[in-house]
Amino acid sequence: MSALAGVGVGRGIAAAKVLRMPEPLAPPSDEPLAAAPDAEHARVQEALQHVADELNARAAAAGGEAQQVLEAAALMAQDPAILDDVRSRLEGGANAERATWDAYAAFREMLTAMGGYMGERATDLDDVAQRVVARLRGVPAPGVPVSDEPFILVARDLAPADTATLDLERTLALVTQEGGPTSHTAILARSKSLPAVVGVVGLLDAAADGQRAIVDARAGTVELDPDDASVDAALAEREARLAAASAPITEGALADGTKVPLLANVGSPKDAAAAVAAGAEGVGLFRTEFLFLDASAAPSVEQQTASYTELLQAFPGKKVVARVLDAGADKPLSFLNDAHEENPALGLRGIRALRANEAILRDQLTALANADAATEAELWVMAPMIADVEEAEYFVALGRELGLKVVGAMAEVPSIAVVADQVVEACDFVSIGTNDLTQYTLAADRQLGSVAALQDPWHPAVLRLVKMLGDAGARAGTPVGVCGEAAADPALAVVLVGLGVTTLSMSASAIADVRAELLTVTLDEARARAERVLAARSAAEARQLAAAVSAG
Amino acid sequence: MSALAGVGVGRGIAAAKVLRMPEPLAPPSDEPLAAAPDAEHARVQEALQHVADELNARAAAAGGEAQQVLEAAALMAQDPAILDDVRSRLEGGANAERATWDAYAAFREMLTAMGGYMGERATDLDDVAQRVVARLRGVPAPGVPVSDEPFILVARDLAPADTATLDLERTLALVTQEGGPTSHTAILARSKSLPAVVGVVGLLDAAADGQRAIVDARAGTVELDPDDASVDAALAEREARLAAASAPITEGALADGTKVPLLANVGSPKDAAAAVAAGAEGVGLFRTEFLFLDASAAPSVEQQTASYTELLQAFPGKKVVARVLDAGADKPLSFLNDAHEENPALGLRGIRALRANEAILRDQLTALANADAATEAELWVMAPMIADVEEAEYFVALGRELGLKVVGAMAEVPSIAVVADQVVEACDFVSIGTNDLTQYTLAADRQLGSVAALQDPWHPAVLRLVKMLGDAGARAGTPVGVCGEAAADPALAVVLVGLGVTTLSMSASAIADVRAELLTVTLDEARARAERVLAARSAAEARQLAAAVSAG
Repeated sequence: MSALAGVGVGRGIAAAKVLRMPEPLAPPSDEPLAAAPDAEHARVQEALQHVADELNARAAAAGGEAQQVLEAAALMAQDPAILDDVRSRLEGGANAERATWDAYAAFREMLTAMGGYMGERATDLDDVAQRVVARLRGVPAPGVPVSDEPFILVARDLAPADTATLDLERTLALVTQEGGPTSHTAILARSKSLPAVVGVVGLLDAAADGQRAIVDARAGTVELDPDDASVDAALAEREARLAAASAPITEGALADGTKVPLLANVGSPKDAAAAVAAGAEGVGLFRTEFLFLDASAAPSVEQQTASYTELLQAFPGKKVVARVLDAGADKPLSFLNDAHEENPALGLRGIRALRANEAILRDQLTALANADAATEAELWVMAPMIADVEEAEYFVALGRELGLKVVGAMAEVPSIAVVADQVVEACDFVSIGTNDLTQYTLAADRQLGSVAALQDPWHPAVLRLVKMLGDAGARAGTPVGVCGEAAADPALAVVLVGLGVTTLSMSASAIADVRAELLTVTLDEARARAERVLAARSAAEARQLAAAVSAG
Repeated sequence: MSALAGVGVGRGIAAAKVLRMPEPLAPPSDEPLAAAPDAEHARVQEALQHVADELNARAAAAGGEAQQVLEAAALMAQDPAILDDVRSRLEGGANAERATWDAYAAFREMLTAMGGYMGERATDLDDVAQRVVARLRGVPAPGVPVSDEPFILVARDLAPADTATLDLERTLALVTQEGGPTSHTAILARSKSLPAVVGVVGLLDAAADGQRAIVDARAGTVELDPDDASVDAALAEREARLAAASAPITEGALADGTKVPLLANVGSPKDAAAAVAAGAEGVGLFRTEFLFLDASAAPSVEQQTASYTELLQAFPGKKVVARVLDAGADKPLSFLNDAHEENPALGLRGIRALRANEAILRDQLTALANADAATEAELWVMAPMIADVEEAEYFVALGRELGLKVVGAMAEVPSIAVVADQVVEACDFVSIGTNDLTQYTLAADRQLGSVAALQDPWHPAVLRLVKMLGDAGARAGTPVGVCGEAAADPALAVVLVGLGVTTLSMSASAIADVRAELLTVTLDEARARAERVLAARSAAEARQLAAAVSAG
């Protein structure tokens, strides 16, 4: 028996056999072709057909959005142009694997050059190419493995493409060697309420296919080859935690009755139903990008009003915090962000891009005010990337001018925390976006694996900035919420409340776990835990200190 | 008479006539060719020859590095392939300007695709293309204007290419409408000790060629059409300031005798002479990238030892602070930074890249220890991009293991300031890199014009982080220096000292101005000024508050 430690996501627990995700294939060798081109061509043809059949079969079984993704991939395996290109490469002396690989690479390059929708499909080609080469090589295809029994998926890390085809019915837990609390794996686990432990050092050396394991997300541990008594205890604990998570929905509160409203992050009006079903007490982050992303120009005031009204109608008498368009960085919009930027995360994004295009901002604020007037919801509106009091005053004044009642700022740029005393006076509220705040405070790209260890909201520097905001908000009577991924981590949620955060907003699926965890501490306990964590010397130590207090 | 305000660079003052930099040409129209292709071809040929002659004449007059740049540009104007391409475009129906423009664009694209040295030459083509089209259009060529009299150069902003050919003998001051304190214009002004005011709103509407002006960098003002008395006063003030700047070299100190050692930033051993001549009391930032940038692998311990020894020998008995290799971001090295990064400034750079390639770091620290042992200089060694105490302890332990006596951290990542209490205990010293610290604190790329307003070390959030470091350093007895561009701004240098900074390091050319300014305040006055500036609500207000106290 051995136990490995990592970063837990959620507070679930699972016991089952390990199923390992195959490693990506090594690229083919450059050895010249040894066999006859015709024979090799036939072999490639067979492999392409095999992969297409396999993808079509999985498409039929998957249904829904995954079906379309898989069927499109099958078509890419059957494209006659690929086979033609493979033939000429074979005749040019390339071996079968290399010819196939390069033919797909050329196809990919062409799609990428086309840009737009076709460009986005380019990455799917990699998966198809890998499958065909695996078939030629006689090794298991990379990608998500399948099983008839429930399993614990063990992987280096999961890519978005993997998660589309993962068999969620049979996946009991996710464990990865790489990735942090904001990795795709962690986001998937949270959205599907799957227990997960990420960033488990030594995992791939230790865990073998078919081995039994216990994954405890709350403890952040993976126990391999547990004895039967441990498994029985884990299964009993699993029942207890599932029961707690499905307890009758109550308002978010601590053990001493202190209210901590639990809100949902939603990406479009169609997410409203899930938020209501999860017992969200409102919406803490309504992302409005969905209306803009596929458009060549900003939508009209009328279109926007209709869409915002649709969402607000789902929350009569409740709070809905809308964020105005957060364009730029990884979400560039042609009509807002036209210049090339070396570091788009440090570029003209958020309020900066809107201020440079004030007509678009005015339209959106007008539409939000219209929707507010037309519904019973309590609308709060905030801007992303506010850096200081000057930007805050600009946005609040504009919002008021256009008829909004409650106007605030997102805290993502480190400077806003450092001058929190000034900003809380200018705003009706502040909402902390922990993902970006962490990214900038540690100067570590949230989407870059090589610096993932720094991109951790448990880092004491991030938590100290949260405290600066919480303290300033308390002094001024300005509410300070959190709407980043950090709020969905039950143990961190307790710490955030201890640091002065007054509301927590998260994906609807995370609410039950956070609600259950908050009920285990009083406000004094949360504050004591926060105090200890602030003295930690690293994110890992902060986690350990919180867990130690929690267990003690 | 009207006075415009901007951001002053240095503390100089100048009075002279304005010479305006021509605006870049509008791109040519797409009107089809109206004249005969042969006649137009002859006209283009004449324009190409004219531009080549002009560039060659200027090359001969310039000498040195500028001569090579200009001669290469002249060759680009005479490339027969360009003329051939223009002909076929004319025959295809394009007008002469459009044909020339597109021919250069195609050439440029080809060079860019080649990458490396040729790729870097691609931008020079733009200048040549603009000159040829200007000749065809009969308008002044863009680029740096020439004059027989001394002048004040007024421009939208200056590009690096402009500054190579600027006639520094006759340029008395630089004034730009765009750009901030870290723009190319500001850097040029500092390195050449030219008074400059950048970011002057409304400048291009107000200032006309030939108009008289007074530029006061210390006050950050540009006065247009001053009366004779004002000009006389400015000229007298100029004499006084030049006399102060060329006063006998003394150690850096405040009016009350408080020592503030003034150190130089150097990029290679050959910069040592200028630093010594400027009265630098040592080196506060020895950048070691020069040994690595053009290499395909890290230089050997022996090569490094020889080079470090050469620099240290220039500073017997004096402090030299060496920064280990800062690769990544805008300085990628193939043997360290191989992966593509969406936001390289937030990527695997500085200590992160070195830790991932520890053999390279060990070699460099060994070479530095060798050079320290072989010379009389007092060597301090620091690592870039240290984020927290864990990284600081790693680096300090490794430095000590390899024989270094004084080991510290650069403060550039905001987190290090937030956990300064922990970091100052682990380090022998801290040196603040204000350029990167500002970039990350405000989440504004230091090289991106559209967010230049946020990239300002006077921002109260940045100054508060400096104070956190200064306070923590004072409590722990750990020296805290500044080696970013901020130290070269005389007014800001006073504020930094008031915030607890104990040494200032800058380009050698800035030392005289900073020395003169420090002598005007006591430590109590510097602290009072810092206190007021911390309460400012913006960088601009911080500057004003400092100037108001200074004048009052």
